[in-house]
This record gives sequence, C-alpha cells and structure tokens, in this order.
Amino acid sequence: MQPHALTAAEAAAQIRAGSLTAEALLRSCLERIEAREPVTRAFLHLDVELALRRARELDKRQAFGAAMGPLHGLPFAVKDVFDTKDMPTTLNSPIYEGFQAGRDAAAVAVVRALGALIIGKADTVEFASTGRKALSTNPYNARHTPGGSSSGSAAAVGDFMAPLSFGTQTAGSLIRPASFCGIYGMKPSWQLVSREGLKNSSATLDTVGWYGRSVADLALVASAYGVVTPEAPSVRGLRVGLCRSPVWNRIEPSGEAALSAAAQRLERAGAIVTDLTLPGEFAGLPDARTLIGDYEGGAAFLPEALVFGDAFAPALRSKATDRAKLSTSDVMAAYNLADACRPRFDALFGAELDVVLTPAAPGEAPEGLHTVGDWVFNGMWTLLHVPCVGIPCTRGPAGLPVGVQLVGPRLNDARLLAIASACAPVIDEDPEFGRRTLLG
Amino acid sequence: MQPHALTAAEAAAQIRAGSLTAEALLRSCLERIEAREPVTRAFLHLDVELALRRARELDKRQAFGAAMGPLHGLPFAVKDVFDTKDMPTTLNSPIYEGFQAGRDAAAVAVVRALGALIIGKADTVEFASTGRKALSTNPYNARHTPGGSSSGSAAAVGDFMAPLSFGTQTAGSLIRPASFCGIYGMKPSWQLVSREGLKNSSATLDTVGWYGRSVADLALVASAYGVVTPEAPSVRGLRVGLCRSPVWNRIEPSGEAALSAAAQRLERAGAIVTDLTLPGEFAGLPDARTLIGDYEGGAAFLPEALVFGDAFAPALRSKATDRAKLSTSDVMAAYNLADACRPRFDALFGAELDVVLTPAAPGEAPEGLHTVGDWVFNGMWTLLHVPCVGIPCTRGPAGLPVGVQLVGPRLNDARLLAIASACAPVIDEDPEFGRRTLLG
Repeated sequence: MQPHALTAAEAAAQIRAGSLTAEALLRSCLERIEAREPVTRAFLHLDVELALRRARELDKRQAFGAAMGPLHGLPFAVKDVFDTKDMPTTLNSPIYEGFQAGRDAAAVAVVRALGALIIGKADTVEFASTGRKALSTNPYNARHTPGGSSSGSAAAVGDFMAPLSFGTQTAGSLIRPASFCGIYGMKPSWQLVSREGLKNSSATLDTVGWYGRSVADLALVASAYGVVTPEAPSVRGLRVGLCRSPVWNRIEPSGEAALSAAAQRLERAGAIVTDLTLPGEFAGLPDARTLIGDYEGGAAFLPEALVFGDAFAPALRSKATDRAKLSTSDVMAAYNLADACRPRFDALFGAELDVVLTPAAPGEAPEGLHTVGDWVFNGMWTLLHVPCVGIPCTRGPAGLPVGVQLVGPRLNDARLLAIASACAPVIDEDPEFGRRTLLG
Repeated sequence: MQPHALTAAEAAAQIRAGSLTAEALLRSCLERIEAREPVTRAFLHLDVELALRRARELDKRQAFGAAMGPLHGLPFAVKDVFDTKDMPTTLNSPIYEGFQAGRDAAAVAVVRALGALIIGKADTVEFASTGRKALSTNPYNARHTPGGSSSGSAAAVGDFMAPLSFGTQTAGSLIRPASFCGIYGMKPSWQLVSREGLKNSSATLDTVGWYGRSVADLALVASAYGVVTPEAPSVRGLRVGLCRSPVWNRIEPSGEAALSAAAQRLERAGAIVTDLTLPGEFAGLPDARTLIGDYEGGAAFLPEALVFGDAFAPALRSKATDRAKLSTSDVMAAYNLADACRPRFDALFGAELDVVLTPAAPGEAPEGLHTVGDWVFNGMWTLLHVPCVGIPCTRGPAGLPVGVQLVGPRLNDARLLAIASACAPVIDEDPEFGRRTLLG
C-alpha cells in the first residue's frame, strides 16, 4: 500500500516502528496532491520545499532518539482561517490576500509541538462563514461540493492528499463535509481546544475540530489536547438514542437511509437502539443558533467592515452593519434557551443513554460548487457545545458517501471516542470504499 | 489647561471644533509621559516617532475635511495582550519578547479605523493572568499597585499620560484598577467587543474593556462598537439595588466607606436605594469562575506549555499540565450554575430595579508591586457577562482613590452608560481630585 493510502494511526505506527519515514510519507502525499489537485483544488497554499525540509528535520530527530510526540511526521492540512507562522492566512478573502500572521494559532502550535508536519492551507468558505465558496470539489465527483466551510480540509483527507486536517464548525462546517467526503470528523466539546489565532465569527459557536480516516485518527489528534481515549466498550448492550432531531422534515431519502442503516447495523450487533425525542423547547435551538451567530458575528466582522468597507464581502459586512437591528431581548432569549437546554441534554446520559445517533447531513453532497449543503442537522449540536463524531455509513443515489454522527454529553469527548471506536466498524460496513474507489 | 489634562470627550470636542490638533494633544501627552514614566512605568513599548507621524496624518485628514470618526486624534494606550500591527506584543512574558503580530486585534482595528491614535503598549500581569506582575505603579503613590492585570493601562490614564486605554477583564482586571487609580472603567457585556487578536485565557470570561476619565469618555469608546448611549435619566426616582454581594466578608473599611458614601449621595439626590440580596446560589459563582478559568486556561496555555516548557511561567504552565486533574462533573456544574444565574440576575431589572451599586474592590490599592489586589468583588460579574462601569468615589486612609461600580443586565450597555452618566456626578463628589492632586 502506498503511504498516502494509510490512515494517520497506521502511518504513525509505521513511523514509530521505523518502517516509514516522515519524508517518504510526505513524498507519497505530495505525489497524490500533484495528481489530484488540479481537480480537487483542496489547497490555497502549499509549500513543498518547506514541508520537505521539515520532514527531514523530523526524520533526523527520530533517528537520534528525539521523536517529538504522538503526531511525529504526520502531514496536516490546515483550514485557511487558522494563523500559521510560516504560511499566508487568507480566509479565502481578497482583503487578506498574502496576509502573514506572526504566530501559529493555538491549535496548530500544539500539534506542531507534538511532531505534526503542516503542509499547507486548505480552501474554505470565506471567513468560514457566508462569503464566497471554496473552489474545492468532492473527491468522488468533482461536480459536487465537498461541503463547507471546511471544504478543502475535508477534500484533502477524503482524496488521500493528507491523512489529517484541521477544520472549524460554527454551524455544520466539520461534520457535514465529513459525511459528504466519506471521512471521519470530530467536533469536540466547546473549549476543549483554544481558538486563539483563528478568525472569529462567533464566540459561542466557533469550534476547532479535525478530520481523519478512522476513529483512531481522530483519537490520535484528540490526545494532543489531553483527551485520553479509554478502551472501546462492547457494542452489545450499548444504549443508543436514535434522534431524528427537531428538523427531521429537512431529511432527504439518502440521509434517512443512512440513519436507518446505522441503527439497524448497531441493533444487529447487539446495541439497544431506542427512539429519542428531545424536549419540545429544543426545537428553538436552530433559530437561536442563527440569532447568536448574527449577533456575535456583528462584533467579529466590525473591524473588516470599518477598515475595508465595500471591498469586504457584503454578506459578512451586513452582519456588522445590521447588528443594531437585532432585538436585545431576542438575543438574550436565544442565549437563555441554549443555556437551559445544555444541562437538560447532558442529563439524558448516564442512567438511560450512552450515545446519540443522529444525521450528519440531510443526504449526499449536492451538485454544484455554489452551495456547500445545509447545516441544519449540525447547528443544534454546535450550540449545545457537545462532542460529535462523524462516521461514514452508506452511499446515496449519485454514488456519493453519506455519513451519520454520534453525539455525547459535554466534556465527555474521551468516552464518545471510545464508543465511536466500538461503533464505527459496525456502522461503516465498507471501510475500504474510499481506497477502492479513489485509489483503485 | 494643558491638553493632557483634558478628558477624551473634552479633547474630542476641541479637535472637532478645530481648537486642538491631534499633534498638540499627543505632544502634551508625551511631555507628561516623559516627566512621569520613570516612576509610573505604565508602558512596555512607546514609539514616539510613529505616533507623531500618525498624528500629523490625522491632522492632515482633518484639515482636508476627512476626519476619521468620533475618536479622531485621541491617544490610546493598549494593554500588551492585544496584537498591534506596528508594535511588539509581549504579554509581559520573556517568551514573547519582541514578538510582532501581523495584524491589529479586532478591538484595536475598530478604534484605529475611527481615528484613534495608538501610542504604545501598556504593562500587564503576564498573559493578563497569574504570571509575573507589571512594573507599573499607582499614580498617587508609587509604593502602591495600580491594580491589575490591566496595570499600565489604568496607570497611564490615571496619571494623565493618555486620555484612553484598553484593558481586559477575566476576573477583576478592569474595574479594580479603575478604582485603585481614580479613573472610570468599563467592562462591557460579554461579546459586545470581539476578542480576536488577544491572547486568550478563558473563552467564557475574557472581556475587552477600556478606561477614561469620565463616563462620557467611556461612552465615546463604546460608540465605536455600536453602543448609542441615550439621554441620561434623572437620578431622582432611580431604583438602585445596593448589593454587598456574597463576598461581603472580604470588604475592607475603605471599600465599605466608599459603598456607603455612594449610596448616601445617590439617596440625597433622590434615588431610591434598597438593599439587594442575591439568591443563595449566587454564592457559588466566585468558585465557579475560578474553576471555569482553570479549565479553559488549560486549553489556552497548552501551546506555550508544549513549545516553551520550563521557560514558560510555572503558574500558567500548571494550568495546562493540571487540566486533566479537574473533575469533568465539577466543571459542568460550574458552567451550569453560571448559565442558570445569568437569566435570574437579568430578571431582577425592569419592573423592580434600574441598576446595581456594588463594590469595585475590597478597598484602596494595597502597598507593594508584588500584588495587584483582590478581584473577589469583580469575578462574579465577569462570569455573569453583565456590563459594569467603575466610578471614582472616595479616598482611603492612605489617601488613595476608592471607587464603586454600577452593574446592569446583559446587553444593556447603552442604558447602563446613560444611568452612569446621571449617577457619576453624584457619586464622584470631587471630580477635580485627580487634576488637583497629580497636576497641581
């Protein structure tokens, strides 16, 4: 198997064992990028020479017994809303063209300190918000979106260009692209990872997360942030709450099929799957999320609105200029609803429930690059600050992947990863689909 | 009166009227800095030539009818935890010595776009947290602290070096130094101002705020962030809740005297002052604040702990290394308590209450630069996300200023500023104390 076909966890094991070098892994990824990037367009910036120098430095450290940590030598693509000390950070916005931050974003600094190899900046919806879209395409069909806003990050991992990447989620920007690109994604609990050095759009919502090609990959990155994943529990007897969510009317047939398949497979494996209907007030969460995003976006985008004026994307500029039109009492009601629902959701777990199974997206990736799909099945979980893991499941009518997500209570990221590692082999019945389809 | 003796609002009016230039105001501030800085040590970085060039550019714009906004020509000191595109950002930490950010923090970019003149970076407690202290001294007695962590920011405004400055508050880093230095301070509602481009220590707590020498000064800066302060209401009939707070056992005689004086003066002016006892569960907020700060600080300081190791301040490094020792259920309980108390506090207002009057600090500034005083009377309000305005009130036994604070419900910053502008002339019976004492 070519090194770029390995999962991050597989590659890390080979590097540790000395059977793979950081340079060999990188060169294999670079070959894949060279072959596919004209179509997939995952990257806004790639510095091959820099990456090769770093890979050799990592190999040198390893050779002299000074490996840097659990991510030693693993190539990482970074969504271009994270500051990086050695590459431009443009947010896919013409107003930040060529901008060079002096320092790594906190999330990037952590993985770099543990040996990760930052290879490039991935395309993104402008400001990870509602500006212009990425040019990135779905690895399985370039006429379809990879999802967004973490478009290039999901496409790069899905298309075997990098084993790992960083994204962010403010509505559904991590878990939805994972579903569209047939990969694994993690949106951890709010504030598990510092957002310092990221362009802000909402203090309550913005969440750093990552992509990989297995639950072990997700757990490997999580370990960098102090999450120690325990032994996977048995699927037999696991209490799974099947949550169609208050926005079930937005599901598509392929999304419904994926959720049903995941539930049936888990049941067949001995899990106890029961319907979970959330309390009535949870139906207000999607709108509360939008209002909080608009209110906080008004503060976040004010500098650009003032400094760049008409040159700044109108959809974002209007968040700053229209903030005063929002009703203070409506905004407070939105905050209060979220604050009230969080402990209610967490309280569902423990005695009655181990994990929630819920759609990752309405269905397979829509056609066209003018859209990144609908975040409606993600926004509620982002606002609840709960950890979510996206897992591939089935294929839709166009042959594109469709995933589901597992959700746990706040701050229980380690337990959720353990449950996901037990459930993933059951839910993801064809783990070789990506390699077989894309690598032949 | 020398220009450096003017409040920001007075100076802004003169600049608008054409009777004062940005350069003349700056030169006057620079003279004051030259005379006092060897003792007050407010600044970590000052670029006189750059400031003068900018002042002339602002005067040129004004002369040709292109004034930049309400802050045109007003000198600003910036706490050295905010990124500035043209000056180093060191966080008072040796590990960031000489670090140059590529971009202004959002809060700074906004005031700069509206004409503010950034003159320098103010000393701070390391990382605005619990590292080494600033060298800054109290303008009224250099053997005493100006408070912290916004030490230099408060000292600069208190000592007439700059009419305005930026600080931050995570526990009590804005309102307490305002009290110690005899100035006005504002901690706005959480997320009124974006924190992008600031060193994070806690996503739930970190709040950008500012200092001035009048409520009009505070309102002027607030206007940059979209807060339109309405007409001041009458003090007569104003319903003031006198809140000794759940930590009243930590008050000192000078703090108690200031609170009593403020209450009596307001009553004499016709306000209806009644004791406000908060619901019992509010007593848990100070500890909840500490726990949330520790938990989120663990994420915030992880990059420095990994990258700089032993060179990073031990008190901060331990937040990262000890995070795993915190109990997840305790942290969730802390979040849930704060989330439950916020709407309960907001609900006190309206029908029954217009504003809360509460201590700004235990008493006058303690002696010694090894301490920045106790934040115990501030932390609860920071966690509640409510706006606070610090107002000078009396003098303590050592002759140092002692203030009080007014607190309003979340997102009602404009109304709180209007109430403060009505109450300040009543509470602050000797508004010339600073000029008389320090400027002679």
